[in-house]
Amino acid sequence: MADRPNTPLLDGVIRPADMKQLSDAELTQLAHELRAETISAVSVTGGHLGAGLGVVELTVALHAVFDTPRDKIIWDVGHQCYPHKILTERRERIRTLRMKDGLSGFTKRSESPYDPFGAAHSSTSISAALGFAVARDLGGITPEGLGDAVAVIGDGAMSAGMAFEAMNNAGHLDKRLIVILNDNEMSIAPPVGALSSYLSRLYAEEPFQELKAAAKGAVSLLPEPFREGAKRAKDVLKGMAVGGTLFEQLGFSYVGPIDGHDMDQLLPVLRTVKARAHGPILIHVLTRKGKGYAPAETAQDKGHATAKFDVITGEQKKAPSNAPSYTSVFGKTLTGLAKADDKIVAVTAAMPDGTGLNLFAERFPSRCFDVGIAEQHGVTFAAALAAGGMKPFCAIYSTFLQRGYDQVVHDVAIQRLPVRFAVDRAGLVGADGATHAGSYDIAYLANLPGFTVMAAADEAELMHMVATAAAHNDGPIAFRFPRGEGVGVELPEQGVPLEIGKGRVIQEGKRVAILSFGAHLAEVQAAAEGLAAKGIKPSVADARFAKPLDRDLILSLANGHEALITIEEGAVGGFGSHVAQLLAEEGVFDTGLKFRSMVLPDTFIDQASPADMYKVAGMSAAQIEAKVLDVLGVASIGEQRA
Amino acid sequence: MADRPNTPLLDGVIRPADMKQLSDAELTQLAHELRAETISAVSVTGGHLGAGLGVVELTVALHAVFDTPRDKIIWDVGHQCYPHKILTERRERIRTLRMKDGLSGFTKRSESPYDPFGAAHSSTSISAALGFAVARDLGGITPEGLGDAVAVIGDGAMSAGMAFEAMNNAGHLDKRLIVILNDNEMSIAPPVGALSSYLSRLYAEEPFQELKAAAKGAVSLLPEPFREGAKRAKDVLKGMAVGGTLFEQLGFSYVGPIDGHDMDQLLPVLRTVKARAHGPILIHVLTRKGKGYAPAETAQDKGHATAKFDVITGEQKKAPSNAPSYTSVFGKTLTGLAKADDKIVAVTAAMPDGTGLNLFAERFPSRCFDVGIAEQHGVTFAAALAAGGMKPFCAIYSTFLQRGYDQVVHDVAIQRLPVRFAVDRAGLVGADGATHAGSYDIAYLANLPGFTVMAAADEAELMHMVATAAAHNDGPIAFRFPRGEGVGVELPEQGVPLEIGKGRVIQEGKRVAILSFGAHLAEVQAAAEGLAAKGIKPSVADARFAKPLDRDLILSLANGHEALITIEEGAVGGFGSHVAQLLAEEGVFDTGLKFRSMVLPDTFIDQASPADMYKVAGMSAAQIEAKVLDVLGVASIGEQRA
Repeated sequence: MADRPNTPLLDGVIRPADMKQLSDAELTQLAHELRAETISAVSVTGGHLGAGLGVVELTVALHAVFDTPRDKIIWDVGHQCYPHKILTERRERIRTLRMKDGLSGFTKRSESPYDPFGAAHSSTSISAALGFAVARDLGGITPEGLGDAVAVIGDGAMSAGMAFEAMNNAGHLDKRLIVILNDNEMSIAPPVGALSSYLSRLYAEEPFQELKAAAKGAVSLLPEPFREGAKRAKDVLKGMAVGGTLFEQLGFSYVGPIDGHDMDQLLPVLRTVKARAHGPILIHVLTRKGKGYAPAETAQDKGHATAKFDVITGEQKKAPSNAPSYTSVFGKTLTGLAKADDKIVAVTAAMPDGTGLNLFAERFPSRCFDVGIAEQHGVTFAAALAAGGMKPFCAIYSTFLQRGYDQVVHDVAIQRLPVRFAVDRAGLVGADGATHAGSYDIAYLANLPGFTVMAAADEAELMHMVATAAAHNDGPIAFRFPRGEGVGVELPEQGVPLEIGKGRVIQEGKRVAILSFGAHLAEVQAAAEGLAAKGIKPSVADARFAKPLDRDLILSLANGHEALITIEEGAVGGFGSHVAQLLAEEGVFDTGLKFRSMVLPDTFIDQASPADMYKVAGMSAAQIEAKVLDVLGVASIGEQRA
Repeated sequence: MADRPNTPLLDGVIRPADMKQLSDAELTQLAHELRAETISAVSVTGGHLGAGLGVVELTVALHAVFDTPRDKIIWDVGHQCYPHKILTERRERIRTLRMKDGLSGFTKRSESPYDPFGAAHSSTSISAALGFAVARDLGGITPEGLGDAVAVIGDGAMSAGMAFEAMNNAGHLDKRLIVILNDNEMSIAPPVGALSSYLSRLYAEEPFQELKAAAKGAVSLLPEPFREGAKRAKDVLKGMAVGGTLFEQLGFSYVGPIDGHDMDQLLPVLRTVKARAHGPILIHVLTRKGKGYAPAETAQDKGHATAKFDVITGEQKKAPSNAPSYTSVFGKTLTGLAKADDKIVAVTAAMPDGTGLNLFAERFPSRCFDVGIAEQHGVTFAAALAAGGMKPFCAIYSTFLQRGYDQVVHDVAIQRLPVRFAVDRAGLVGADGATHAGSYDIAYLANLPGFTVMAAADEAELMHMVATAAAHNDGPIAFRFPRGEGVGVELPEQGVPLEIGKGRVIQEGKRVAILSFGAHLAEVQAAAEGLAAKGIKPSVADARFAKPLDRDLILSLANGHEALITIEEGAVGGFGSHVAQLLAEEGVFDTGLKFRSMVLPDTFIDQASPADMYKVAGMSAAQIEAKVLDVLGVASIGEQRA
């Protein structure tokens, strides 16, 4: 506790109601304390630091002016919500962020009435706020009441098509609705860049004279880098007689830009909006990611996501790493292949670092495409690259590929175009929790005609699968791999294309065969060792392919054993279901087979370490071992439980 | 043949190369003939008429000016491509449109090199064109070469988030790329309405002086309803010194608006663009859906989709209908329920008619929300309506719900919000073919924790399921139903909520049980009759729920019969896979069960009647019967084949 910052005002604020008596000066002080507390907490837990620091003042101002939880504040993505959580009855748990049984790293309905709509994927907040606004006007009911709906959305998130769709609809419906554009200038997407050259016509008009006055002051108060935008905005204002801003064209009133770190701008603007807004209104707020903490402000990613760190030096305390991450193995392998094949190109949806494509982009800048937060476009763009004779690798996390599912079906699969999908973060992902779990990709890809679907058992296998995908030009192909480090196997000089639809036998045994698809092979092998110690040596195989299935391998395992157990890091409907379909069609069940399919359970699993999450899922090595014993009917009850 | 129009010029045009020697006057004449031929063809086949008639001149002008198939013309949605097909080697097959073994009603890569990128779902064309443009500049190869990339996109399609994402990315990449905005003023979406108030700055600038001159003429030539837009555009032009258009803000040059039915405007503008464009450029073309055919022009939907019709009178030749459509039963049932429950609201993504919500919208205009072509937003908006205490019914076709899949997972399922999904067009859909098939929804919904998934066996069941969904407030619920007419069962006065997770036994039999999920029950019953005639009376059950499964029913069927066969109008990974998972976990396979799961096969099935498509899928009544006999081992080879 000695390390904790001194926070006399914050100590008295358990919930927003406690802020209502504070003066503006005290609110400013509260923001300072909140920033210090946020830094202190994340230094212990790790997590998204920069985004939260950027909205400290905005968080205080919103809760001071609005009447939460009756008014609904919806934080887009939600990774900037740590200060919000501290102010809304969760300070005492803030040092459990992203830990097992702790607070979620995102907003979450089940966690607090102050989180009216959870998030984690981007660009949903305007749709959500509009839903609340419409519900309010139609007499909808929530336990906390239904007041104003306020979406807080970053400039990057605003560039996604979904946000555009929501703005479009909101402008049309013309309900009272407040959108705060948190413009932290971290995005490279043009429309967002263009946003900073806007000012609202409203800004010059009657009921917002206060705002105009506030903003006049604002321009002179703005720090240097903001000045230019403000000046440009003024220029635009002069010529607004017949023009209009993007937001106004979409039916929004527009206010801004204002300095999001200056309570003397935030508070009057929000109060005026709260008192007088009608229809949809957008408040353009300029902030700095990582604001107020030098190590974050100076970091290239502005402290976007961090491990635990030393508050004084900013030095991150990462666990020593033994094996390379799957992500980096993918990036390196693809970059290597691209040296010899100039048709290889790569597509990422605003995740060059997360997908490992940063290396590729550095080496081949003209062949790497960051399309922004735009999975729908990214997938179809990749499809056309393939139609144009290129070899596109579309690197999108399993959970985000859900955003481009229709395009995968309609533009890639139906046209049988050879797009290579690098599906990172497959399976359970740890601290990001249920919203980021890659649980469904096997099911939603493997039933698409003409698709080839692989999963890597380890990082060496991943290298082979990248090479396989590069060589495979007959229809779409996907390879999935998990978050985190590999298992530490020796890496080959280079990946070698695998035979399509062929698995491999890891060890031959008796009575039971375990057929693994993907990165759970290590746990299966551990379980096999445990079983061997009990006198049961299982056969173990790595399927490599969920599609096409290795028919010969599967039938041989089924016919040669009393029991066959499949295992995958995915939900029902995927690999195990395809194996079951094959076995049924082949009549294998007619005469009896102890078949089991171990899949992720029918629940959303909260954040914890991946190992702990897989234990909740019943898929630890011990649990696999128990499952085998149970199926064979040789286990005592005591032995079955891990 | 007597009814065919006189088309002397068109008769000499087999492919675009044949147009290159034609004068501008002859091209105008060619357009007239092309329009007549299009009307004549669709009068025989039925299909999308209005959209094609709106782009007849544009189609001629594009093929006259551009060098197809080297240049890639990408028709968004593709339903306006009939004139294009007539000009590109497919005239002789044009009267097979949308028929079995005939031409697709959309563009299709496998059909012609003049269809470089197929479509059917909207708003993909700019992404595709950008992919071709990038591939071209990177040295990509196609058999026909790689020249200009031209996307033709309607105003409605332009309002989708995906189009915005693509524009955003295209403006950033700054490749030579041509987007033609086909503005037929049929959309109600605000950004598109706003488009017609724009003119380009480019329009006033140097290299496009020809355009300016052409456009000056254009304004005076415009028909009355276009005038106002043109006048507004002029006004905007005056004030353009500091402003800019939405498209320019996204990095596009802008040309327009021009009259899309005047070859004297289209040809010079396209020629200038072809000769001089650099970077992305948008050409704004005004057209009229249904242009040149009075019955279409005067129809409310501008002849959007039509049955076969009489060319002279325009009267459509619909087959006499015996049973109401599933769609109308849904619409009526929901409207009835909404009278008694003011919390019921409805969401559609630009499909009020197609989903049957037009009736609801008429009765409850303030409770029905057409969000535009915006499935992502629509789903999340519905989620927030539910969070705000409303009872939202989100009516989206199975194939289009793929567009909102991530939102279904992230915003609805993870938050366990009671959104009701009315999943129309489930299963194979007939003339619209593979792109519109609703094959995957069972698989992609039934593995989401907390979801309830139903399928209606007939139109009376649908009524009960609508009532079930209305009454179910504990998490999300979906009910799927097919395109077309019901089976003609008697309809109850009103729907009655079903017990969640309980199926029903239709008939008790011996040896084999057939467990149907959804609208294939009629075929199952027909198969059962056929089997009875052969001395085998199967048990028949209607599962009603894919989730939660009716465990008792399934185990009782499995234990009471030698064989259990599931059947569903969906791909593997869905109902049958969930049943298999249950049977495996319960150890039913351990001792043997002749289990089969009849699902859609692992191919995309081309357009035909739904009955013919299901025959291709191996799911006709005769094929079900044969399957049963095969599984029981009592069939001769001859008897097995339908």
